[in-house]
Amino acid sequence: MSTSGVVSLLRQIEGTGRDTRGPGYQRPGFSAVERDLRDWFLAEAARRGLDTEIDANGITWAWATPPGDDAVVTGSHLDSVPGGGEFDGPLGVASALAAFDELKASGALEKAARPLALAVFPEEEGSRFGVACLGSRLLTGAIEVDRALGLKDAAGDTFADVARGYGLDPERIGRDQSRLAGIGSFIELHVEQGIGLINTDQAVAIGSSIIGHGRWHFAFSGQGNHAGTTPMSHRADPVVAASRVIGDIPTLTAATDAGAVATVGRTLIHPGGTNVIASAMSFWLDIRHPDDAVVQQVLEAISQRAEVHSADSGVEVTISQESYSPTTLFTAELNSRLTSVLPDAPLLPSGAGHDAGILAPHVPSAMLYVRNPTGVSHAPEEACEADDQRAGVMALAKVLARELRIEEAFAASAAGGPTAGGAR
Amino acid sequence: MSTSGVVSLLRQIEGTGRDTRGPGYQRPGFSAVERDLRDWFLAEAARRGLDTEIDANGITWAWATPPGDDAVVTGSHLDSVPGGGEFDGPLGVASALAAFDELKASGALEKAARPLALAVFPEEEGSRFGVACLGSRLLTGAIEVDRALGLKDAAGDTFADVARGYGLDPERIGRDQSRLAGIGSFIELHVEQGIGLINTDQAVAIGSSIIGHGRWHFAFSGQGNHAGTTPMSHRADPVVAASRVIGDIPTLTAATDAGAVATVGRTLIHPGGTNVIASAMSFWLDIRHPDDAVVQQVLEAISQRAEVHSADSGVEVTISQESYSPTTLFTAELNSRLTSVLPDAPLLPSGAGHDAGILAPHVPSAMLYVRNPTGVSHAPEEACEADDQRAGVMALAKVLARELRIEEAFAASAAGGPTAGGAR
Repeated sequence: MSTSGVVSLLRQIEGTGRDTRGPGYQRPGFSAVERDLRDWFLAEAARRGLDTEIDANGITWAWATPPGDDAVVTGSHLDSVPGGGEFDGPLGVASALAAFDELKASGALEKAARPLALAVFPEEEGSRFGVACLGSRLLTGAIEVDRALGLKDAAGDTFADVARGYGLDPERIGRDQSRLAGIGSFIELHVEQGIGLINTDQAVAIGSSIIGHGRWHFAFSGQGNHAGTTPMSHRADPVVAASRVIGDIPTLTAATDAGAVATVGRTLIHPGGTNVIASAMSFWLDIRHPDDAVVQQVLEAISQRAEVHSADSGVEVTISQESYSPTTLFTAELNSRLTSVLPDAPLLPSGAGHDAGILAPHVPSAMLYVRNPTGVSHAPEEACEADDQRAGVMALAKVLARELRIEEAFAASAAGGPTAGGAR
Repeated sequence: MSTSGVVSLLRQIEGTGRDTRGPGYQRPGFSAVERDLRDWFLAEAARRGLDTEIDANGITWAWATPPGDDAVVTGSHLDSVPGGGEFDGPLGVASALAAFDELKASGALEKAARPLALAVFPEEEGSRFGVACLGSRLLTGAIEVDRALGLKDAAGDTFADVARGYGLDPERIGRDQSRLAGIGSFIELHVEQGIGLINTDQAVAIGSSIIGHGRWHFAFSGQGNHAGTTPMSHRADPVVAASRVIGDIPTLTAATDAGAVATVGRTLIHPGGTNVIASAMSFWLDIRHPDDAVVQQVLEAISQRAEVHSADSGVEVTISQESYSPTTLFTAELNSRLTSVLPDAPLLPSGAGHDAGILAPHVPSAMLYVRNPTGVSHAPEEACEADDQRAGVMALAKVLARELRIEEAFAASAAGGPTAGGAR
């Protein structure tokens, strides 16, 4: 086996969950598509002789050695945002399999001082139930179980019901202290979601932090009425008020801090008829900045504007927080070991949330980002060159070897192995 | 039978198509719910001994006498906007049945000089396929058949497919000259959709005109990307551009003409993820004013603003007309006969479109509006008092008696009949 494996592994799932209405993918959390992808991972793990299990929170584990304490774990997720790209999530899972292949082929794995496991986290994007990194949040207790079970998807189904259909027992869902205690290092490889590696000669970066981000729900309610018979002066139109707020967000955000980002990508209008003045409109606001105080300032500015526009339009607005994650620094000691084996890799902060960021407060965690030539993510234009994919696998294999304390044996083998030969 | 019939008729269908997510109704055109309502009408017509038929365009006809030329036709529709009220449409259908009952009970109907038919038009609201009054537009040729067959609903199903599933033959759909030629008068009773009868002592008004209105589709396309990793300055966010346009609509409309109305009640964001900068956003714009030139001025002002906001946001906008109906005056000669039997009824223009407005250029057409104490329509708060419903039925029966030239016989009977007795 060679590092060319990551390209062919991704090719195996390139047809799964393709968006039928446009380019990109539809791979919602806990859906039939995510289950198909999980089954693909289980089959690939079994083909490699790994012991697999799905835990109480729907996280899939594949053990390269008998499960044990101080385990080295690598993996990512297989779900996507609506209309997402090919690599966000799957690159990390395919690279975990390919890096295992490298370690195995080197013969060094037998000498590993610590257990090794590959992991796949469900509903990382939060596209279905609105809470990103749902699997890792449940594992770590970062979300209350009752709140999680009551989350509803767009069809009105609760997470409790969907989880049950996915083969989980709602009674067993929640923080799993013994499993957490068994993880000694978690390393997640992910396609880079910005422009940090473009115009550099490096294909791989090491994550320094995940900047703070939160989601808030803005609900505007007015008076539904007939679009043809209600004078403009008699209206209480929530669509007008909400749209004015959305239109002001870029200016308010830039005025607060040039480094802050704030986005509305999802709205809901009730009832949503062409010839109907709506009675209600909601939007979800996503704000991120490394300084939590700046996130609050942006929220405050937008919230004040929402009050003003609502009052002007005669509608009511209610603002509620759906999730909040303060800025997370990846584990310094682990990162210094990553830097020791990848001395040329730059350190990059991430504006995107990841399961590694949820795990970081609980277990030593780190991330590797692989260059994305478009800089675009959460869209079909997201990209990753085959050579960079292979470089990512080799970087991950080196990091895992360092963690497993087989660095020298792996380096000795790799020097005469496929990366020095024709496999690239 | 008495005029109390209209209240109990409406009670029979009050549970059909109730919105499960909130108050109001969900009765989309050509849906299982509209079919259930149509079946209810067919059963009520059959119970009265009327001959029923569904024509090539899905319009349901119930003949009180053998079909013939110069027919007097009354009716309305049974579909609703999403989250609509109880009376918009069904009041006219139930009143048609109740008015027939009045005429029949009077014994005058046997002396009718012209045929009488009740009619139910499908997809009047255009909530499903985007074109209001689809049934009457097809009957009159006001929409091209190929365009109609290719219309798609939100699920992506074409009207051709849905019509086939409704029992229609797409090959036969379209203008029906012989049926049109057989209609001598069309009278539609409808709940009033504004405040024209509030604070008057009149329960019923006569329609003078339907003001011009059109629908346009505004499609904005930008660059989808990650909400966390894309700086505000690097974005081409169609949600921002479209929202700014929507926010400006009330001001632009009021500045153009105080009597004009313009509404956005329906939008679509692709892909629609909370943590995704969208790649596309559309909205549908509804504009109405008695003067067609004003409608064009409002459209022009909003279109120009859309170009400005799109350029500012780095997105593209495409504007297309979905439908346009110029101001329609109801038939003067017919209206003078209505006024002769309802001398106290005020004449009211309507900001709402109706099948009677589509028929008016082809056959003598008129409308009766029944008082709505909230003035609200296309929303659950739409209302009509039982006494006003009965007054509407009596007004319709008088108008039909005049058209059928049995006015005197009906008046003589009605004088000693239920309306003078205890039935009210």
